[in-house]
Amino acid sequence: MKIALAQLNYHIGNFEENAKKIIAHIHKAKKDNADLIVFSELSICGYPPLDLLEQRDFIETCLHTAQKIAQECINIAAIVGCPTLNEGEKGKRLFNSALFLHNGIITQTVHKTLLPTYDIFDEYRYFEPNSEFSIIEYKNTKIALTICEDLWDNQVVETAFAKDKIYKTSPLEKLHCQAPDIVINIAASPFSYNQDYLRTKVLQDNARQYQVPILYVNQIGANTEIIFDGCSKIVNPNGEVVYEMSEFNEDYCVINSEQCNMPTTIKTESYHKIQKIHDALLLGIRDYFKKNNFKSAVLGLSGGIDSAVVLALAAKAIGEKNIRVLLLPSEYSSSHSIDDAIQLANNLGVRYDIVPIHNLYESAIQSLEPIFENRPFSIAEENIQARLRGLLLMAVSNKFGNILLNTSNKSEAAVGYSTMYGDMNGSLSMLGDVYKTDVFKLAEYINKDKEIIPRNTIQKPPSAELRPNQKDSDSLPDYDTLDAILFEYIEKKLSLHEIIDQGFDEQTVIKTIRLVNANEYKRFQFPPILRVSSKAFGFGRRIPLVAKHVV
Amino acid sequence: MKIALAQLNYHIGNFEENAKKIIAHIHKAKKDNADLIVFSELSICGYPPLDLLEQRDFIETCLHTAQKIAQECINIAAIVGCPTLNEGEKGKRLFNSALFLHNGIITQTVHKTLLPTYDIFDEYRYFEPNSEFSIIEYKNTKIALTICEDLWDNQVVETAFAKDKIYKTSPLEKLHCQAPDIVINIAASPFSYNQDYLRTKVLQDNARQYQVPILYVNQIGANTEIIFDGCSKIVNPNGEVVYEMSEFNEDYCVINSEQCNMPTTIKTESYHKIQKIHDALLLGIRDYFKKNNFKSAVLGLSGGIDSAVVLALAAKAIGEKNIRVLLLPSEYSSSHSIDDAIQLANNLGVRYDIVPIHNLYESAIQSLEPIFENRPFSIAEENIQARLRGLLLMAVSNKFGNILLNTSNKSEAAVGYSTMYGDMNGSLSMLGDVYKTDVFKLAEYINKDKEIIPRNTIQKPPSAELRPNQKDSDSLPDYDTLDAILFEYIEKKLSLHEIIDQGFDEQTVIKTIRLVNANEYKRFQFPPILRVSSKAFGFGRRIPLVAKHVV
Repeated sequence: MKIALAQLNYHIGNFEENAKKIIAHIHKAKKDNADLIVFSELSICGYPPLDLLEQRDFIETCLHTAQKIAQECINIAAIVGCPTLNEGEKGKRLFNSALFLHNGIITQTVHKTLLPTYDIFDEYRYFEPNSEFSIIEYKNTKIALTICEDLWDNQVVETAFAKDKIYKTSPLEKLHCQAPDIVINIAASPFSYNQDYLRTKVLQDNARQYQVPILYVNQIGANTEIIFDGCSKIVNPNGEVVYEMSEFNEDYCVINSEQCNMPTTIKTESYHKIQKIHDALLLGIRDYFKKNNFKSAVLGLSGGIDSAVVLALAAKAIGEKNIRVLLLPSEYSSSHSIDDAIQLANNLGVRYDIVPIHNLYESAIQSLEPIFENRPFSIAEENIQARLRGLLLMAVSNKFGNILLNTSNKSEAAVGYSTMYGDMNGSLSMLGDVYKTDVFKLAEYINKDKEIIPRNTIQKPPSAELRPNQKDSDSLPDYDTLDAILFEYIEKKLSLHEIIDQGFDEQTVIKTIRLVNANEYKRFQFPPILRVSSKAFGFGRRIPLVAKHVV
Repeated sequence: MKIALAQLNYHIGNFEENAKKIIAHIHKAKKDNADLIVFSELSICGYPPLDLLEQRDFIETCLHTAQKIAQECINIAAIVGCPTLNEGEKGKRLFNSALFLHNGIITQTVHKTLLPTYDIFDEYRYFEPNSEFSIIEYKNTKIALTICEDLWDNQVVETAFAKDKIYKTSPLEKLHCQAPDIVINIAASPFSYNQDYLRTKVLQDNARQYQVPILYVNQIGANTEIIFDGCSKIVNPNGEVVYEMSEFNEDYCVINSEQCNMPTTIKTESYHKIQKIHDALLLGIRDYFKKNNFKSAVLGLSGGIDSAVVLALAAKAIGEKNIRVLLLPSEYSSSHSIDDAIQLANNLGVRYDIVPIHNLYESAIQSLEPIFENRPFSIAEENIQARLRGLLLMAVSNKFGNILLNTSNKSEAAVGYSTMYGDMNGSLSMLGDVYKTDVFKLAEYINKDKEIIPRNTIQKPPSAELRPNQKDSDSLPDYDTLDAILFEYIEKKLSLHEIIDQGFDEQTVIKTIRLVNANEYKRFQFPPILRVSSKAFGFGRRIPLVAKHVV
């Protein structure tokens, strides 16, 4: 049997475009004499549809679109992902399903059994889990059709204190009794730089355990925060990767099912972490603009490393002609900051304007004088500068229709080292899931072929430049230490004492964790953040605002 | 048997305070010769703990606190709510449990079976559902102990297209076989003005169906958005309410278990919707300040109805001496707006300062002149005014430590009639779940005994006053129509066509729904909103930002 795999980019709720893309690939696969073409999880509606699943017309359009696509399946079969109605009297009203389309109709429907309900996933909110298991027979091949997490029955809870499995059912174990020839898994498995090895391991473990080849079809593309990286692959019964599709790009291939059982000769590419993050962010910005039909961006360039990296990435993703930047110097801005910013804009060919904020700042201080009286300069005056910059950037955004890009990084977001309604502004945060130490590495990566980001921007000590001679290190631990502690606390969910036990300075750990806990209120109003780690701030990390914490 | 019911206000993660309160009530109940005292769901840690449940030390402290409380249970038993570890090899690592404390130890543990995972609830994210059912025998009484949603086995999915039940198990049906004498239900059931009747109905239906009295112990208090109203009650086997505890206040009572079977003589109070919302909001603000240890607030007073109602409520909740307001007139502010604002501040005895924004606005326009050139006045200039106001309010907040209160209402939040980083600013949104038409009714309610909010503020046509002679009605349908459409779309989740079929003007419905859909990005950065309806914006309503919508 010849099987085509289609690793595509879907847009949530854009049924027309998704269907067009799917149908075009069905026709392509037919020309390639494929017997079957496989698309990924919820390919008809895009992933994650969230509460759109509670809208009647959304579900009706899903089902209608599936039927339309089925009509194209003559002399070929297709597997697509689609929510379907649970017709039973009880249970959640929907299933997360894989439809087998053949002879112009939906011939079989398989539901997802293991529903991820952790981090960014809330599938139990919408779907009833499957409890019936049967093989699909097609062209003398017995197919065990599964959906994403269905292979993850050994998934451990992502918490520090839990070592055991979260799922009680093993779909593959149930299907194995029916002796499948191949396993097909359709997925919506998002990228994270520190856990992507796990996905391959799960495929390999399953293939070896059940002695069956697995065809895994993931999707690519970003839906605001969540970035899918593709990397669809075929694993033979020895757990070797026989074929791998591209990372962060649409891809398509046709294979003979016998190939899936062959020993492998190919070596899979070994990607570097920073390169992966770089490519993920590019896809994230690009899709955010494309799917929202946004054309152009604006951002504030400070001469510092965060805005420099954001600009370099955005210029690459949406084109330097579609971006303008503002330089917004105050009396505390160093001259080299302005020079560095101009240099960067020129290196990239991006239009820049300089709008000094000094007069406006003086005007704000004057307006407030009767109220502030003679109180000393404080965080209030620092924040006024950041907020005036935010205001000017939004004014340009409103006047010209440019989308404001946020330039905060994850270290700042973690400890609240940013001004609400000021530098926290933006429609999308590109670096909000990238620690400062990785922002530096991204800058070096961007500069790998030639100097785009000025050396001085990379080398000078980080500063918010909101008061004379201010340095980040005045109020924060050095970034190497800070980021290491943050990673233990946020990604690894270790407790205060467990982190101290690792040898970090006790007071530094207490201070850091206290800052993280005390700044939930700021992050509550943070822009959406492109997610590249296993635990980004935002929807996947839910901490009550009024909680009393250990520190 | 004498049973004490304790309807208390818990603080998430504040184990010390929660335990102190629980222990004090255990001692009180002992003095009252009670045999048993009942506290509500997750009373030890507060509800909802969200991802704190994934922190090892949080769970350890929960269990440690439970043991400490158990030691106080000598010659009395207590039921408390607490997360417990699932010691099984598979499944989620926690249970949402009720602990039966007696003779100084935890004698029995009952787990929650039906885990709400919809709207603001995500219990399946953390907890494994219970699958074993047994009665607790104590003092010759057979107690069926259940947790909140366990009685809601007839709960229907809250979507327009679903008519069936979301749960497959009926805990009470299973316990019924063991012939309980009473059912105790410990709850964390939040307030919503348009669904609170349902809760009583569920208790009544269950009592009648199983011919058993039900003692239902809810909690009160607000944890940022979510407000618990209490209204704990006892229902006899005929479904009559024999006893009802207070609404929005802590309460305590001791009853004889025989009383639970008596025919009722009391009439339950029939509260008015607006009064309920009023009381819920007061509790919401009060607890937000108290639990965060905030002392004072600031807000901008425009002379319009929204800020007037916010001020009146806040003054009542946290004291007029703890609030200051800024009047921030521009050239487009009408003189009566300033007069009305001053009148209100004086009526309440709240300190006000007038900070005209004209000079600052001119300074901003001048700064932007080289960029804006001679482009006509647009939304950019309107938003600059709103953002300068936001900046001045935050400056006062930062300088003096006052918490900024947001003054947007639900109608505005729905259609995006507000400025990000401007009037959308604030640490807490008090009216973000109250439609404009209800804001008017709240104003009348606040004025019921004497005129606090000036009549002119209530009667004049709503206006943002950001350009000459602007009225809300220039860009929006009249609020009666707008709010009616919004309610059908948001709370009732009807589709575009279903709403049109109800007789609304087609173009108005399309325009309204398009605005709601187009403004998800604004609401993403909205402050936390006090939830008073069954569907508030925020955490309980999750719409993907990049989605393509029907309109």
